[in-house]
Amino acid sequence: MADSRAAANIGVVGMAVMGSNLARNLASREGNTVAVFNRSPERTRTLVGEHPEAGFVATESYDEFVASLAKPRTAVIMVQAGKGTDAVISELVSRFEPGDIIVDGGNANFLDTIRREKEISPSGIHFVGAGISGGEEGALKGPSIMPGGSAESYETLGPILSSIAAIAEGEPCVTHVGTDGAGHFVKMVHNGIEYADMQLIAEAYDLIRQGTGKSPAEIADIFAEWNTGELESYLIEITAEVLRQTDAATGQPLVDVILDQAGAKGTGAWTVQNALDLGVPVSGIAEAVFARSLSSRPAQRAAARDLPGPSGDWRPDDEDAFVEDVRRALYASKIIAYSQGFDEIVAGAEQFGWEIKKGDIAKIWRAGCIIRARFLNRIADAYSDDPELVVLVSAPYFRDAVAGTQDSWRRVVAAAAYAGIPTPAFSSSLAYYDGLRAPRLPAALVQGQRDFFGAHTYKRVDKPGVFHTLWSGDRTEIETSPSSH
Amino acid sequence: MADSRAAANIGVVGMAVMGSNLARNLASREGNTVAVFNRSPERTRTLVGEHPEAGFVATESYDEFVASLAKPRTAVIMVQAGKGTDAVISELVSRFEPGDIIVDGGNANFLDTIRREKEISPSGIHFVGAGISGGEEGALKGPSIMPGGSAESYETLGPILSSIAAIAEGEPCVTHVGTDGAGHFVKMVHNGIEYADMQLIAEAYDLIRQGTGKSPAEIADIFAEWNTGELESYLIEITAEVLRQTDAATGQPLVDVILDQAGAKGTGAWTVQNALDLGVPVSGIAEAVFARSLSSRPAQRAAARDLPGPSGDWRPDDEDAFVEDVRRALYASKIIAYSQGFDEIVAGAEQFGWEIKKGDIAKIWRAGCIIRARFLNRIADAYSDDPELVVLVSAPYFRDAVAGTQDSWRRVVAAAAYAGIPTPAFSSSLAYYDGLRAPRLPAALVQGQRDFFGAHTYKRVDKPGVFHTLWSGDRTEIETSPSSH
Repeated sequence: MADSRAAANIGVVGMAVMGSNLARNLASREGNTVAVFNRSPERTRTLVGEHPEAGFVATESYDEFVASLAKPRTAVIMVQAGKGTDAVISELVSRFEPGDIIVDGGNANFLDTIRREKEISPSGIHFVGAGISGGEEGALKGPSIMPGGSAESYETLGPILSSIAAIAEGEPCVTHVGTDGAGHFVKMVHNGIEYADMQLIAEAYDLIRQGTGKSPAEIADIFAEWNTGELESYLIEITAEVLRQTDAATGQPLVDVILDQAGAKGTGAWTVQNALDLGVPVSGIAEAVFARSLSSRPAQRAAARDLPGPSGDWRPDDEDAFVEDVRRALYASKIIAYSQGFDEIVAGAEQFGWEIKKGDIAKIWRAGCIIRARFLNRIADAYSDDPELVVLVSAPYFRDAVAGTQDSWRRVVAAAAYAGIPTPAFSSSLAYYDGLRAPRLPAALVQGQRDFFGAHTYKRVDKPGVFHTLWSGDRTEIETSPSSH
Repeated sequence: MADSRAAANIGVVGMAVMGSNLARNLASREGNTVAVFNRSPERTRTLVGEHPEAGFVATESYDEFVASLAKPRTAVIMVQAGKGTDAVISELVSRFEPGDIIVDGGNANFLDTIRREKEISPSGIHFVGAGISGGEEGALKGPSIMPGGSAESYETLGPILSSIAAIAEGEPCVTHVGTDGAGHFVKMVHNGIEYADMQLIAEAYDLIRQGTGKSPAEIADIFAEWNTGELESYLIEITAEVLRQTDAATGQPLVDVILDQAGAKGTGAWTVQNALDLGVPVSGIAEAVFARSLSSRPAQRAAARDLPGPSGDWRPDDEDAFVEDVRRALYASKIIAYSQGFDEIVAGAEQFGWEIKKGDIAKIWRAGCIIRARFLNRIADAYSDDPELVVLVSAPYFRDAVAGTQDSWRRVVAAAAYAGIPTPAFSSSLAYYDGLRAPRLPAALVQGQRDFFGAHTYKRVDKPGVFHTLWSGDRTEIETSPSSH
C-alpha cells in the first residue's frame, strides 16, 4: 500500500447519524484529516458529497480505509453495539499493527469492552471503549466523551478527543476514565442517572398537572423558571420546550397527543443489573427503569384500568406553595439519584480495579451530555474537597441542600400517596435517604427470619463472631463459623 | 457391575444439611431405597451411622454410586450451585445411560439449567432442574418442589417427589412446572417474592416500633394475632417467634442484639435482573433487595449517620388504629409483591416457551416453602376462575381486598414520609399500584424528551405510525419508521 495515501490522522467506521456527525465534528477541527468508511458505500458517498468542506478521505473497503490512516493508525467505530461491533473490530485487527488504536464509540456493555480489550491487547493493538454522550447534536457540535483503555493510547487519543469534545468553563469534557471497560462503565451509569432524572422530572410534571390542573404550557413556564435556579440543566430546559409544543394536527399540547408508553434502549437496565451484582442500592434508577416498563405494558394497564383510587379528591391548599414543594422535592430526589450513581461508580472502580477520579467525571458531564447540569460543579467540588468521600449526599453542600428541602420532599411524597399520583422515584429516593441515615434498620429482623428458616446465622452488635439460635431446638444461641452455612 | 447391587430406586449426591435431610426424607417413604454419596466419605459414614433406620445404600465412589441405582437410574444432586454442580453432572453423565435421570436440586440459575439441559439431552439422559424450597426442615419433613425438565422424566420423578413433598389440603406440593429451566425459574421468582414479603414485614415492624414505642414482645403479640387472619403465613408466624426471643446473654430482645445488616444469597438479585431483561416491573422485589444491600454498607451508613431527619416528632393519634392501618398496608403491599412475581412468571413463560399453570404454582406454594400462606388459595382461585388473568391484582378478590385497604395504605406511606421511617417496599408497592391503574402516565413526557435529545420518535394516541418532531428545525412533525433510529 502506498504510504502517500496514508493522509488521515483519524478514521471513522459507520456512517449512520452518530458516526457521520462525529466525523464532521472531527473534520471541522484544525489539523484533522478524517478517513470515513461504511459497509454500504452509498452512505459514505452521500456524506462526502453533502460536506465537501470536511475534506473527508472517502474509502470503500477496509483495505483502502486502513491504508488511508497515518501511523499510529486511529479508528473510531460508530456502529450499532453488539455483533456488528465484533465484526468491524475483527476486520481492523487483521489489518492494524502494534501501537495502532481502535476506539469503540458505541454504547457497548462495559463487560463486552473488557472482554474485547483482553482479546486484542496481546496483539499490541490498543482497544479503547469510549462512551460518547450528547446524542446526534452532541456528536456534531461537541459531546461529553468517556474513554477507557490504556493510558498509553490516551497520549494519542487525548488531544484528538479534546479537540471535538464539549467545553465546560474552558475545559474539554473528556478525561481518561480508567483502563479497559471503565469508559463504557461510566457512560452506562451516566445513562442510568439520566433515566432517574427524566423520571423525576416526569413525576414533578404529573404532580403539578394533576394537583393544580395547570396546562402543559403553564407548566412549561414553571420549568423555564426552575431552569434559572439550582435545577438548571439540559433536561429541565428541554422539558419546558416539550411541554410548550402544540400539536399542529389537533391544536392540543403535544404531550397529550404522545402515547404514554416510554421506550428504552437497555443501558438503564444494565446500570441496575450491574448494581445488583455489586450490591449497590440504586433504587431511584431501578424505579425509573421500571416506570418505563410499566408504562409499556398496555395489556396489564388495560386490565388494571378500573382498579379503585383514593376516595377523596385531593387538591393542595396553596398551589404556589405546592409547586415550590415539588421543585424542592425534585432537587432532593435528584441529589439522591446522583449519589446512588456515584456510589455505583465507586463500587465498580473497586471491583474492576479502576482509578476513577469522581470529580473529573462530574466535570466532563457539565457540558455535551444529556445530564449536563449546573449542580455538577457542586459534585466536582465535593470530591475535590474530599476525594475519599464515601457517599455524595453526606458532603456538606448536599447535606445542607437536603436539610433545606426535606420538609417539602416529605409533604410531596405524602400528598402523592393521598392523591393516588404515582411517584415511584420521588418516594424511593426519600425512603433511601431515610434508610441511609437510620441509626438502626429492621434488617436485624430480616437476619433473624433468615436464621430461623435457613440457619443463615447473624452477627451481634456487642461482640464479634457469627451466631445461630437453635430455633427448632431449645432456642439457645451457638457460635458458629460463617462458612458452615 | 453386579446387577444384584442395583437396589436403590433413587440416589442423592451431596451430604451437606440439605442433601442429607432430603435423603432421610426419601428413605422414610414406603418403597424407597436411597443410595447416598458425598465427595468426602466421612460425611456419608456419619449420616449412615446416625440413621440406621434409613436403610441407606452408602457408596464411596461414583462407580459404586451409579452401580447401586436400579434402572432407569435417578440421582438428585444437592451440592452448592455453580461449578461444583457441573463437576458432579459430568461424573454422572459419563456413567449414566439413555433414559436415566439427573436432578439438580440446588439453587441453580435457571439460565445455567437451560444450558445444562441442552448439553445433556442429546445423550438421551434426562436433566431436570428442580427448585426445592423449605430450608433444612422442609427438606427433611416435606418441601415444596418445583421440577422442570422433560414431561417424560416426570413420569418417573413425579411419584417419588410427590411422596416426599409437603401436603397442602391433601395435595402434594409438587408439579411439573415446565420444560428445561422452568423449575429453577419459578423457584427464583419464589425467592424474589420471599425477599419482598420479608422486607414488607420488616417495615411493618419498624413502623409499629418507631411509631408507637411498643416492645418487640408486644409486637410479637400483634404478629401472632395477625397470623390468625388473612395475613396467616409462615413468615408472619416466625416473625412473632423471632420478636419474642430474648437474648440470654444480655436479657435484651434478640432483635435488638442482632447486627442490622441483612445478607443475601443472590436469588433475589437474579429475580430483578431477569425482570429487567423481560421488561417486567418488579419494583417491590427490587426495593427489598436494595434494602438489604443498603443495610450491609456500614461505611456509607456511618458517613450518613448525621444527615438530618424531619424536624417534628411524629406519633400516631390512635395507636390501635395505626397498627390496624399498618396491617392493611402490609396486606395490600403483599398482594402487589405477588402480583409482580406472577407477572414475571407469565413473561418468563412466554419468553422461554414454557406452559406454566399459574394456579398450580400457587397451590404448590401453599405448604413446605418459605412463602407458604393462606392467601395462596386465593391466587389459585383467581387463576382457576380466569387462567388468562393478565395481572393478578386485577382479579376481583384482590381488587376488592385492595379497595378495602387502600386508605390505610396511603395513610401509612404518608406517615412514614413525615416520620422519616424508611418504607421503600410499602411506598414502591403503592406507587406501582397507582401507576398500573393510571389512565395516563407522564411517560408521554419522557417520550417527548427522548425524541427531543435523541430523535427516538414517539407514537400518537390518535393514529397509528411513528413520529418525530424536528426539534432543532422548524418543529414540524414528520412520520418516520421505527427502524430508522
